[in-house]
Amino acid sequence: MHLYFTSSERHFDDGVVERAFTLGDIPGILWTPASATASVPVPPILLGHPPLGLDRMYPRLVARARHAAADGFATATIELPGSGDRPRWDTLEEARSELRRVKQAGEPVGDEIIDALILPLVDKAVPEWQSALDALLALPEIDGPVGYSGGIISIGVRLAAVDARIAAAGLFAGSFVPRAILEEARRVTIPLHVLLQWDDEGNDRQASLDLFDAFASKEKTLQANMGGHTGVPQFAGDAAAHFFTRHLK
Amino acid sequence: MHLYFTSSERHFDDGVVERAFTLGDIPGILWTPASATASVPVPPILLGHPPLGLDRMYPRLVARARHAAADGFATATIELPGSGDRPRWDTLEEARSELRRVKQAGEPVGDEIIDALILPLVDKAVPEWQSALDALLALPEIDGPVGYSGGIISIGVRLAAVDARIAAAGLFAGSFVPRAILEEARRVTIPLHVLLQWDDEGNDRQASLDLFDAFASKEKTLQANMGGHTGVPQFAGDAAAHFFTRHLK
Repeated sequence: MHLYFTSSERHFDDGVVERAFTLGDIPGILWTPASATASVPVPPILLGHPPLGLDRMYPRLVARARHAAADGFATATIELPGSGDRPRWDTLEEARSELRRVKQAGEPVGDEIIDALILPLVDKAVPEWQSALDALLALPEIDGPVGYSGGIISIGVRLAAVDARIAAAGLFAGSFVPRAILEEARRVTIPLHVLLQWDDEGNDRQASLDLFDAFASKEKTLQANMGGHTGVPQFAGDAAAHFFTRHLK
Repeated sequence: MHLYFTSSERHFDDGVVERAFTLGDIPGILWTPASATASVPVPPILLGHPPLGLDRMYPRLVARARHAAADGFATATIELPGSGDRPRWDTLEEARSELRRVKQAGEPVGDEIIDALILPLVDKAVPEWQSALDALLALPEIDGPVGYSGGIISIGVRLAAVDARIAAAGLFAGSFVPRAILEEARRVTIPLHVLLQWDDEGNDRQASLDLFDAFASKEKTLQANMGGHTGVPQFAGDAAAHFFTRHLK
């Protein structure tokens, strides 16, 4: 599958070029630094995000993209299945209403609910991100070891476990992790930088620590900070940036 | 109490000056960057270390000192009670032999042993580090918010809890923590950067996580890495350096 760039293109003061694209019927965005050319291609980082739609996530994505561009990376992201402008996905909607029901009833969020919410998303999204990566690496201005950053951690784990092109991953321990993904984590051996918001009340801290423990990577770093689910401090972003520079440049 | 500089002085290529001193009968070392003058004093970082004697710890201490000097900090350290050239301390020796006996017998290391090993050291060392700080801050080339870095974590916790001059602490979760210190941690509110070696077999990981959780600081970061007790990776040192620069400059 090829990327088709739409007419939407944006140029930033710092030379970063933002191009919207479609991959089949999946919308996506590519950001490249001014330095990226066919003779000096730059390594790509895939920008993961929560399933809230690219439009809603755009301000945070573009900030991450420009930060990465300043370090010499291209970044790209695609819409998740059932999110944003993509067709409504009943499987996901049902799992979400069941989660809401359980939370409102004050019941514990059991493994079945987590599995139903996360596993179909991982199964569907991961091949899409791999197709996007195929298409990105076919662009002349992009080449090199690939990073994956943020988003639903289970998608990052699966990608790191199954796609040998992913050379380093910066993960955000901020969402539910199915037991099956914990097992897949034991096959992950690439360098990892895992962010955990210590006081994230919506997150199961022990599950995140168990996941970190499960990775087989010889180099793995857990960085836990304060600030709640969305309050990842600026310096944590800088540390993640250093991580990618160490491993992809 | 005043610092008395001994005749031992060393000058490094990077302009760092190392001066041995005594504070009463306690030996210590001060490192200052070339930039430190009475008109432009630099903030100090106290360099903690394990109770193995300054001579044995010297190579690692001088590396940390020169790294900090490059960032514009003075650093200083003093010998711990019962270590190095200081008089043998029976209380400590007895606690150490009891620990050895228990470990050799394959028995669990109980709270009483941890208390006996750590609390007397904290009680005796902390006022000494405070005296050293009094004397350091009386030097014309040293002034500013104070950092504490590394060493026995319980000493760092007590210092951060009782001495308002300590503005930021980088702690190493690599040694036993008495229950009383866990309680003192709840009074610590300064910014903290805590290093934990995730695969440190000699360390109780859960106790370290409980300690990190106990700190009342609004800004606290836990960075867990691989590499065993003494294998703190280079990039972890860089992250700690950024932490001090953020808070002391």
